[in-house]
This record gives sequence, structure tokens and C-alpha cells, in this order.
Amino acid sequence: MKMVKNAVGRMVPTEINGEKVVPFMGVGKHRPTGKKHAPNISTAIDYPADGDKRAPSLKEALLKSGLKDGMVISTHHHLRNGDLVANQIFDIAAELGVKGLVWLPSASFPCHKDIIKHLESGVIHHIEGSMNGPLGRFTSEGKMQGTAVLRSHGGRYQAIQDGEVQIDIAVLAAPTADFFGNGHGLDGPSACGGLGYALADYQYAEKVIIVTDNLIKFPCIPMQIEGNYVDYVVEMDKIGIPELIVSGTTQITKSPDRLLIAELTAKFCDAAGLIQDGFSFQMGAGGTSLAIGIYFHQMLKERQIKARFAVGGSTQYSSKMLQDGCLEYMLDGQTFDLEAVRSMRENRLQHPAISIFHAYDYHSKGNFTTMMDVMILGATEVDVNFNGNVVTHSDGYMLHGIGGWQNCLFAKCTILPVPLFRNRIPIICDEVTTLVGPGELVDVIVTERGIAINPKRQDLIDKVKDSGLPLKTIEELKAEAERICGVPQKPEFTDKVIAAIKWVDGTIIDVVRQVKGS
Amino acid sequence: MKMVKNAVGRMVPTEINGEKVVPFMGVGKHRPTGKKHAPNISTAIDYPADGDKRAPSLKEALLKSGLKDGMVISTHHHLRNGDLVANQIFDIAAELGVKGLVWLPSASFPCHKDIIKHLESGVIHHIEGSMNGPLGRFTSEGKMQGTAVLRSHGGRYQAIQDGEVQIDIAVLAAPTADFFGNGHGLDGPSACGGLGYALADYQYAEKVIIVTDNLIKFPCIPMQIEGNYVDYVVEMDKIGIPELIVSGTTQITKSPDRLLIAELTAKFCDAAGLIQDGFSFQMGAGGTSLAIGIYFHQMLKERQIKARFAVGGSTQYSSKMLQDGCLEYMLDGQTFDLEAVRSMRENRLQHPAISIFHAYDYHSKGNFTTMMDVMILGATEVDVNFNGNVVTHSDGYMLHGIGGWQNCLFAKCTILPVPLFRNRIPIICDEVTTLVGPGELVDVIVTERGIAINPKRQDLIDKVKDSGLPLKTIEELKAEAERICGVPQKPEFTDKVIAAIKWVDGTIIDVVRQVKGS
Repeated sequence: MKMVKNAVGRMVPTEINGEKVVPFMGVGKHRPTGKKHAPNISTAIDYPADGDKRAPSLKEALLKSGLKDGMVISTHHHLRNGDLVANQIFDIAAELGVKGLVWLPSASFPCHKDIIKHLESGVIHHIEGSMNGPLGRFTSEGKMQGTAVLRSHGGRYQAIQDGEVQIDIAVLAAPTADFFGNGHGLDGPSACGGLGYALADYQYAEKVIIVTDNLIKFPCIPMQIEGNYVDYVVEMDKIGIPELIVSGTTQITKSPDRLLIAELTAKFCDAAGLIQDGFSFQMGAGGTSLAIGIYFHQMLKERQIKARFAVGGSTQYSSKMLQDGCLEYMLDGQTFDLEAVRSMRENRLQHPAISIFHAYDYHSKGNFTTMMDVMILGATEVDVNFNGNVVTHSDGYMLHGIGGWQNCLFAKCTILPVPLFRNRIPIICDEVTTLVGPGELVDVIVTERGIAINPKRQDLIDKVKDSGLPLKTIEELKAEAERICGVPQKPEFTDKVIAAIKWVDGTIIDVVRQVKGS
Repeated sequence: MKMVKNAVGRMVPTEINGEKVVPFMGVGKHRPTGKKHAPNISTAIDYPADGDKRAPSLKEALLKSGLKDGMVISTHHHLRNGDLVANQIFDIAAELGVKGLVWLPSASFPCHKDIIKHLESGVIHHIEGSMNGPLGRFTSEGKMQGTAVLRSHGGRYQAIQDGEVQIDIAVLAAPTADFFGNGHGLDGPSACGGLGYALADYQYAEKVIIVTDNLIKFPCIPMQIEGNYVDYVVEMDKIGIPELIVSGTTQITKSPDRLLIAELTAKFCDAAGLIQDGFSFQMGAGGTSLAIGIYFHQMLKERQIKARFAVGGSTQYSSKMLQDGCLEYMLDGQTFDLEAVRSMRENRLQHPAISIFHAYDYHSKGNFTTMMDVMILGATEVDVNFNGNVVTHSDGYMLHGIGGWQNCLFAKCTILPVPLFRNRIPIICDEVTTLVGPGELVDVIVTERGIAINPKRQDLIDKVKDSGLPLKTIEELKAEAERICGVPQKPEFTDKVIAAIKWVDGTIIDVVRQVKGS
């Protein structure tokens, strides 16, 4: 494997799984060439005039779709850790003796640990997609036949759109669907809200199979999945485990440290003049993010001003902001709790589903994220150059996906509220284990013991310097953590590259290697 | 020009405007090959990070888009006869000395008659698209430099999708839009409802320009046009003349003959068992169609049953059916009056905008139209073999576009309610002047003097034979018309082909020739 040094100084291969790849060239430096991917032209001649595309079983649908060795099979992750569909696909493939598949999920979860046996037996050659938990550990142990490819959500759309990865069969769970293949996630026992991660899959796959446990009469409106792209519809008893798909209620953190981080983050945003009438923000659905949202909500209410829009995972809290008139639009990429699903169902105008294409595809004509005033993100590690890591832990194991993280870095002010240490391991280090996002795009680190602003953002430093907030340099924060926890041991790796980390433009920003002795 | 006889016996060329074409091979006989059209890959690098894609003027936007000789420029027709945008494009092109353009509107109207001077001067080489009125007459007189190409709405999507016609610049009027290029037609002084005809244009064009007279703050929701496909946004004072875009109220016919036709049509549908709980229908917004809709509405109300869905142009009447609970879904391709615009704005679930892709694209994975129980269409002529014409009048002039007519023929029961004669010219003839739809797809002709059922539909004949309805053969209807009006003179044509009529699969079903002596 030929390795070259890329623009952030990481050694990366020029070929992954036998395909040529481009090393990361710097933010905004790689210009794509060529045309978007184009699937074969279909004809209505091949589809039933009565619109009924049902196949008797997933197996039948896969067979009719021509499932064979080496194919790329894609799924979305809107059913999250409650997904009952993906495992079945590969059980069927194993039963049929199919080998060497590539699985392209928009993310995988602990519920997919049964996939490990199909990786071991060679049914699946490798996974391209986020691996949260067991599959990530398996991969870090060097046991996957091929090399994993991790992309951001936007990078996944980009790769499919550009034909870097070509989907043979997309198997898309739809909590509600009609026999023609129109589907949405707003109703049914496995309701999950929007289905925006599935867009690239159905637009660009050669064959599309919809799997549902709530078949309704045509037409299924809204058409979050458009039946005109769909080949087969499969009904099954149960596509998901509701309580693992959406939580009853998402919960804000109760940890005093995390609450302090949230408070400091909100105060920083205020001091920096970011909380203004008509501003926009994005944050995750984790406990700290939710707490920050609560602070934002309070400020907006008190000042009788509104946020124009928020993008991202929606929760009961963002839904409340909509209801209170503190937020005009919740542009929903995924829907995390039942209250948010209800909001989306009942408030179609202000709480629309959007897709990854809209928010994040770097190879489209602009992105929503670059317009956003405040972006709240997490990280497993940040280094003194503000480079961020979200995929590996400090022990070297790759246990997380990138999600929309890289895409979100392009916001006007990107803030990482992180604890100074986790399990007595400092978060701030000299050099991140895996470089997932370049430091030039990370503006602020907020910890419970101080706030470090990227020196590149002198404008932000000037704005908050007299705010009384605990401003520190990132080196000071690192030193403080090390005083408390000691200098952590670096993980050791073998030479074996187990995963490639793609940047939003399809270039390779870093690799992950096998953990030594694993 | 080499001419060959196609599957319906019409002599058609093998080449149009220098491009090879395929003669019509019969319904469902032509299989497409190859891949869909793929535009160049874009990158967010080339678009402003603040999302503001505004250009100071349409001229500037066209220049930035690289307007040059021979390009294909597309527009949609949602502003109908009130459109103020299309003429400006070609005035600018003329001012810039650009020549040989192809105009690809989804339809043109009398308001576009000023385009004639650009056809005469060579700014426009030819038009591919419906020509209603003056432009059609101009073309029939043999004055267009190239050959016109007429496609159905679905055929237009198919042609753009398949790359048969490749759009260089799409200029899309949006009654409401944001600076990023998201747009919809639900609000603003030029509100027109849905914008579904624009889908192929923005998906497949190399450059997309949005023109609006109602710029709102990002995000413009719903995104009937998706800003991620848009290059430039142009604000102008006025994109349309409201009273020519949507009528205040659409009106049912007051003609006793037309009302009788409507009544007979409704009675036929009832006798044939088509009006059932959960049935579906589509009809236009013409006076007779509206009257048929009123009859349907009454029947549903009386019987306390519901139609599951209607597709097509929406009006105050279909909106009333939704409100009354007699119709569950109005899938809206275009929105004809203010009341329908209001319904779409306020009832997003039951009255969604859909696109041509969904309803009509024959090269997608099935069509909505094949599922529809009752389809009501018009015709300028029908012949004794049930072949239909919608583009030329009996005097030979091409004064209408195809609209969705060909696409709609695929419904389960296609009914043409037509007067037996117009201006003392019989509608039923031995052979249609222009064969736009093959008789095998036309099921029933309803006139004020009797109903003719296609002999291929013995099932329908059996159902209604004892209904007391005035059933006749099509030959009897023709004879009756000729007894009253005499046998009409046939129009005379030169040899010059002035327009090609495409079938829904992109093949050539007929041509139109220059009217002799015109």
C-alpha cells in the first residue's frame, strides 16, 4: 500500500480496497471533475400498471433485484438502535451463499453486532459507513476483510452522487408506505420522523426495496421516499423496536460539570453577540447540547426575539421552541423523540424534513451549514492545533461514526463544548489520534474549567475579552487537565490500516490503524 | 430528410434538428438503453458561504451562467399566460447578440407572442415545448428556423432525464424564494400554487437561475425548488400578472350541450361501476371537466363515500371536495385558481404539490396515471379508430400543446367528453390530422348526442349496455355529425415538417406539416 503525506501531515494511502483515492489537499482545495453518477434509465413497461410492487418477502425482493457477490447494499439509520431490517439482509445473503458484499449504511449501531458473523464468514467484505460500538471495535481489531471507509453524512451523499460508491441495492425501511413505494416516517409502530438520510440511496441506487410494517393505501403522503424510484415493496411484521428508535423523551444532562459547560457555552455565545434576532443554530441531541438549547430558549424568551432556523436532530426541546414562537423553522435531519415526531407530523410548515443533500452535500451548489451562526458539536479529542477527532477514543478504538460533524464545521462559529477529561483521560492532547476535522474550522473549545478560542478568530477573542468568561489558551487547558490526570499514555497501533477517514470532498484526511495487541 | 412509416402508419423522419430519433414502435414497445443524464459535479467552493446567490439582474445572471450561441434555455409555465419572465430572457439574448438558442418551455402561451421576433431574427432556432396560440400559428406557417418538438409533460421530464435534450440554463420563476434559491409558489403577488413542472429543469440543468418578486429570508419553506441546485437568484419588481396566472374563480360551463356531455360522462362512469369508495380520478380545469367534477362530488356526497385521490390541475371545486371529506388527497400538478392556492397553502397534507416525475415520467419506475380509475381528457379530433389529436385543429394549424394528455391515456378508463362538432366542424373523423395518442388507449368518447365505447373494451360495453345511456358506435356518431355539418374539407399541407410529436417514451409518433398557402 503506497502511503503519502496529505495536507494535514497524515500518512494516507493512495488506494483503498483497490480503488484510487485522493489525499486531503486542504479545506476548499480539491475541485471535483466529471459528471454525477447516473443510474440506468428505467421504463414503466417493467413495473405493474396497478402500481402494486409488493414482493412476498425480503428474500424474494433481493433475488428479484439480482443480489450477487460483490454488490454494494445500502441502508439508512433512521431506525437507529431499533433497526430490525439490516441484519436480515445479510442473513438472507448468507443463506443464499452470497459473498464479498459491501455494506453502505448511513450509520450502524450496537443492534447490528450480528453483522460481525457475516464479516467473519466473508458475506460482507467491508463496511463503508459509521460504526458505533461493536462493529467499530471488531474493525479496530483488524478483523474486517477489506478497509472500512468512514464518511460524514454529507460525504456519504457526495460519494453516492459522484459515483465514488455505486449502490446496487438500497434496502430502505419506511415506517409508513404504500404498495407503489412512497414512504414516510411520521406514522406507524416504528415512526421515526423524517427519512432524509435515504435520499441519495433511492435517487442513485440501481434497485430500491422498501420495507415497511405499516402499509397504507396509495398515496402515502408526504412522499419522503418517492415511489417512482422504487422497485419492490416488502411488508413485514416489525421493522423496528419503537423504544430504541425514538426515546419517549430526550433528557438534558444532570451532571453538574456538563451543566456548567452548557452554561459557559451559552454565555460565550451571548457575549460574542451570536444570540440575535433571526440567528440560526445547530446542536445535537446529547445531554449537554440539550442544556445549551434550554439556555438559548430562555434568552430568546426573555428578550422576545426569535431564532430564524435550526438544523439538525429535533427533540422535544426544539419542538417547544417552535411552539413558543422562539424558533421559526426546525429543519429536521433526524427526529429523536416522540414529541419531535408529533411536531413534525402536525407542523409541516415550520418543522419540515430536510435531507442531507440540502444541509451537507459539499458537492452541491452551496450548503446550509455555512450559513449557520452557532454550531455546537462534540469531540472525543481535540489537539492544541484545534484539530478534532470524533471517531476514535484515546485508547485507539474506533467506536463512533463521523455523523454530520465534518459538514457542520463550516458554520460561522463552531463550538466544541467538551469536558476537560473523561474517565481521567484528558480530551485535549498534543495531536489527535485520528484527525477528522482540521483545526482551522474549529473556533471555540468550551470546558468546565475554561474556554479556549482559536487564535485564528481574533474577532471572537476581541468580542468576549471583557466578558468575565474564563478565557484560557488551549495549552493552558491541556496543562490543567494533565495536572489533574497526568499525561495519558498514547495508544499503540500496528501498521495495518483498518479504516480510511474521508473529508467532505471525498479526499482522505486520515486513516485508522489496528490497535496493537487487540 | 429520410422518412419511415412508424407503428401507427405515420411517415416520420429519422432525424430532427440534426439529431437521430426513433420512430414510434407501439405502446410499451420501445425499451430505453443507457444511463440517465448527469450534470457536472458542483462544489460548494464556488458558492458564497453566506448563502447569498443574488445576481443584480437577469442579464448579469445569464452572463455569469455563460449564455452563448446554441444553448438550450428552459422555463416552466406555472405563471401561465401571466408570465413576464420568458420574454425578458430572449430580449436580453438578442441585446447580447446571442443566436441559435433552443427554448424548452414546459408550455408557452399567447403572452409569449413577442418571442416571434426572436424566432425571426434567429436568436431562437426552434422551440421544444407546447405552443398554445400565436407561436403555434407562426410555426404552422413554416416560419421557424428549426423543427419544433412537442412532448407531453411526462415526455419532457423523460427527455431531460434521459439527456435527449440537455438544458444549459434553466430560468425558473418562483413566486416566493430566498437568496439561496429555495422557492415555492404558495405566496407572494404572483402566487401560483405548486412548481412541479420545474423539477427536471433544476435537477438536470447545468445552470439554474431563480427569478422572484417576493424574496424572503432563508429558509423558504416548503422547498418546491431546492436551492442546492441553484446558481443565481434574481429579484425583479414583477414576475407575473396575477389575474393571468390564476383566475379568481374557475367557472363551470354554462353551455347546455357541454352540461349534457358532463352529465352523460358522469352517468357513464356511474353505470360502469367506476364511482366507488376509494376510487381515483383526474380531469382538467376546463368548463366541461369542472361540471363532471360537480356531478362526481354530488354522487360521493349522496352515497357518503370518498375518492381516495385525484391528480391534476386543482381548482376551487377539488378544494371543496377535500374540505367536504369527499376526496382524501388532491395531488397537485398545477394550481388553477386562488382558492386552490389557498387550499394547498393551508392543507399541506391532503393537498400536496407533486411533480411531473411522480405522475407522468414513463422512464421512471411506474407512473401514477396507470393506477387511476377515471381519466377525463379533451381532444381537438378523434378518429374512427379512437386515435386522438390535441395539437392541431381541423384546419391544420398547430395551436395547442400536448400537456399531460398522452401520459394520462394510460389510466384504467380514459374518457374523452367532446362536442360532436365545433364551429360546424365535426370532431370525429376518418383519420386524425395529427395522431397524438393511439386509439388502443382511448376507451370512451362521450358527445352530446351519444357515447361510443372502444370495441376493445368489451368489459365496459357489457357493464353499461342496459343502462339506458345513448350508446352508439363511433361510426354512427361520425355519420350523425356529418349529416348536420357536411363532410369537412381536409386541411392541405406542404411537405415541410414543422413539428415532431413525441410519444411518452421519446419516439416519434407523428409530425405536423406546414399549412399550405399559409
